[in-house]
Amino acid sequence: MKKINVVESVLKANDALANENRRRMDAAGVLAVNIMSAPGSGKTMLLEKTIPLLGPEQRCAVLVGDLQTTRDAERLGGCAAEITQINTGRGCHLSAPQVSAGLATLDLNDISFLFIENVGNMVCPAAHDLGEHLRAVLLSVPEGDDKVAKYPTLFQPADVILLTKVDLIGVVDFQFEKVYEDLSRINTRAPLIELSPKTGQGMDRWLAWLRQQRRGQTGS
Amino acid sequence: MKKINVVESVLKANDALANENRRRMDAAGVLAVNIMSAPGSGKTMLLEKTIPLLGPEQRCAVLVGDLQTTRDAERLGGCAAEITQINTGRGCHLSAPQVSAGLATLDLNDISFLFIENVGNMVCPAAHDLGEHLRAVLLSVPEGDDKVAKYPTLFQPADVILLTKVDLIGVVDFQFEKVYEDLSRINTRAPLIELSPKTGQGMDRWLAWLRQQRRGQTGS
Repeated sequence: MKKINVVESVLKANDALANENRRRMDAAGVLAVNIMSAPGSGKTMLLEKTIPLLGPEQRCAVLVGDLQTTRDAERLGGCAAEITQINTGRGCHLSAPQVSAGLATLDLNDISFLFIENVGNMVCPAAHDLGEHLRAVLLSVPEGDDKVAKYPTLFQPADVILLTKVDLIGVVDFQFEKVYEDLSRINTRAPLIELSPKTGQGMDRWLAWLRQQRRGQTGS
Repeated sequence: MKKINVVESVLKANDALANENRRRMDAAGVLAVNIMSAPGSGKTMLLEKTIPLLGPEQRCAVLVGDLQTTRDAERLGGCAAEITQINTGRGCHLSAPQVSAGLATLDLNDISFLFIENVGNMVCPAAHDLGEHLRAVLLSVPEGDDKVAKYPTLFQPADVILLTKVDLIGVVDFQFEKVYEDLSRINTRAPLIELSPKTGQGMDRWLAWLRQQRRGQTGS
């Protein structure tokens, strides 16, 4: 009996190319952050606010994944040094081959941070290594305080968790304690940062975390 | 050279079982509505409010899909006549085999409406027929007014589109016109109902739509 484990071999091929992506970025001194969340948690607005605040000494590039449209890339065109939109068609996540093709459009030697804005989806992106160094996972307050427990595969491997749209606390029902309680079982390693890119609340802590990771990479 | 189209054959197997699910429900006089959206758009709260408003003459059952936890089923336990939680583990959508197994837990002859609450995901559920008669797609105001254009595969086959959490209009940036404009290119067939299950706004129109679909099925 012959058996073809298609899913396994596809994931292995993805992982091999993800490692190659990581080697390319290491060689160029780029720190890559894979940004994942449900649709509408505020990934694009986070980047719109983060990149200018990092200052001109940090050259930032963005790879933006969406099924359709170039709207996010257009929104980010004003702040990122380089930006490439990846349209996945019916694809529910970015893959390492897509990121490899995206990297070929960038001048890596001129970049400090590469932000990879994944397709809005709390399930599939988590299963695909893109070659990133770090995973930032967003959860927005209006999505509800039960999402960590319901989507553990996303939150478990996160290096930082950003609770966004905290300016809506009090407007919508949301209990912080539930999130902290669920995270205490799923991921105690990643810091949880409460922020609102819209009002600026908490952005200092997120920027400090990014700069610390960058120092860790460059050893400076 | 031999070639195995795994994805195609998996989808064909799913569709065959979906048709079988539909036949079972037709035979029992059940109207099945597949409810799809991003995580946190308010699928569970919609059902919590809808089922009591439909009244005792409409016996409602729910199949609830989630990666993990039985929280949604617990929330709905008080209002649905029958409820079965389906945990998909790492699965990003419900499938026809899972719904077939779910149907086996229900007394179909005693049910008017079957609501199938899909996994929160704007991409993968749309590609999988479960045997439903109708597709209801939710978009919540805090997710943003760009989602129809960015996730057309979800909105294109929808039979009704529910714009939820409209009580947050004015609190968050959201332009109705953008949604209507994108829908004019993607889906002009489905009615768009603006509602807030929390405040009750728009629920009458949604209930009228459900009752009309039920009359269309039973011919009464």
